[in-house]
Amino acid sequence: MTFIEAIEAAWKRNNSLLCVGLDPDLNKIPAHLRKNDAPLFLFSKAIINSTADLVCAFKPQIAYYSASGSEHELEMIIEHIHENHPGIAVILDAKRGDIGSTAKMYAQEAFDRYKADAVTVNPYMGTDTLQPYLDREDKGVIILCRTSNPGAEDIQDLDSNGKKLYQIVAEKAAREWNYNGNVLLVVGATYPKELKEIRSIVGDMPLLVPGIGAQGGDIERTVTNGKNGKGTGMIINSSRGIIYSGKGDDFAEAARIAAARLRNEINRYR
Amino acid sequence: MTFIEAIEAAWKRNNSLLCVGLDPDLNKIPAHLRKNDAPLFLFSKAIINSTADLVCAFKPQIAYYSASGSEHELEMIIEHIHENHPGIAVILDAKRGDIGSTAKMYAQEAFDRYKADAVTVNPYMGTDTLQPYLDREDKGVIILCRTSNPGAEDIQDLDSNGKKLYQIVAEKAAREWNYNGNVLLVVGATYPKELKEIRSIVGDMPLLVPGIGAQGGDIERTVTNGKNGKGTGMIINSSRGIIYSGKGDDFAEAARIAAARLRNEINRYR
Repeated sequence: MTFIEAIEAAWKRNNSLLCVGLDPDLNKIPAHLRKNDAPLFLFSKAIINSTADLVCAFKPQIAYYSASGSEHELEMIIEHIHENHPGIAVILDAKRGDIGSTAKMYAQEAFDRYKADAVTVNPYMGTDTLQPYLDREDKGVIILCRTSNPGAEDIQDLDSNGKKLYQIVAEKAAREWNYNGNVLLVVGATYPKELKEIRSIVGDMPLLVPGIGAQGGDIERTVTNGKNGKGTGMIINSSRGIIYSGKGDDFAEAARIAAARLRNEINRYR
Repeated sequence: MTFIEAIEAAWKRNNSLLCVGLDPDLNKIPAHLRKNDAPLFLFSKAIINSTADLVCAFKPQIAYYSASGSEHELEMIIEHIHENHPGIAVILDAKRGDIGSTAKMYAQEAFDRYKADAVTVNPYMGTDTLQPYLDREDKGVIILCRTSNPGAEDIQDLDSNGKKLYQIVAEKAAREWNYNGNVLLVVGATYPKELKEIRSIVGDMPLLVPGIGAQGGDIERTVTNGKNGKGTGMIINSSRGIIYSGKGDDFAEAARIAAARLRNEINRYR
């Protein structure tokens, strides 16, 4: 099963476009977990087990592991998801981008070492730097298009012959890079107008949409502007808004309540 | 001492603009090293010890370590350089780029975990995503501008109101992002015309120039077009062209010969 087929199946089975971002910060996780040998794994595992039936995917952000040399915990987390929640896809949020020979190593890192089902990548360096990922037909390649952060406009909104850079990236993604049918785009929930434009460029292509929750994206406008003709086509990510819902022993239950609420609110507008 | 001061001192002391890229591929290093527990470290250490007096910096490319879960060997390599070759800067080639909260973790990874003196970053996501690196005054922030690969033109050459995207990045780097005087740009040796244009935009700002050697960049044109008014201003990287000069037991001596030859040829045109 390809990544996109797995996502489509999970959208249906769990009736959910929600993705939970696994960005565990040692300074923010409950104190009782910090004493353990594998605090990021234990924290994430509890969140995963309490939300897996409410989501279509999990998205660990690799920097939260590599900052402290905790790559092994990331491996354990992904293995845990595959073994205990088959059918729930893992998106490795790594935003890689480098020349072809190096991109091959990054593709190996994401898909062979970590066994992620999809990886986020940066298009700045051009087509040949995306190819090692695109060539992996069964994996998802999620290309940055219009990101959710305040400075996204600095480069991505530059106008070139009447088109914004993010529109050009969306066109290339749909017409040039999607030769294996495994391309998705990152489009921030904080920019609903741009989300609508990109949806009109890429047809039914799935979009990874961060920026809900802590970053302030509005759910109704996000879903209305981003969904495709089938009422799906979006993987809507929330990280901090879910994983830090509770501060104490009940953090996993609190995350479940927050995830259920967000899933249901998203579904209201599909 | 800041990263740029260290580079300037090394340019002078070793009379060298050369940077050796530490991209050790298990399939390409001499067979007798592969049996060891830390083959990437042993290979890189030998290269480092035989070339350190001929270079201004070493540049490990993180993908070559993370692809196989060998982050600990990368830590050992950087520690080895700092302890045994003080004054030779370490550039972590990681090409990171993410929203502010994540960029903080990536800055922690590069500067606190690995103790690199500089890191390469991607500008696609905009100013706020560069800030956590730029705020580290003593560290170098090396921003992708016009890269060395064939597909660089796909995005970086897009024209916006009479300027190419890479020219806009160069202007932002010089006028907006360099508030701590710690910015450098990546400009590929494979594009000497663009190198000259960028030099004229950024004044004396140091440039990291990959693409010599395996990628085909011409040394005379690279140096003539890229040097600043002082005959320096460049960190010229070669990875494969140096580290794989020899295939057998003499690989470190062969790397020394290749590094000396390249340093001298670069100096001929300064």
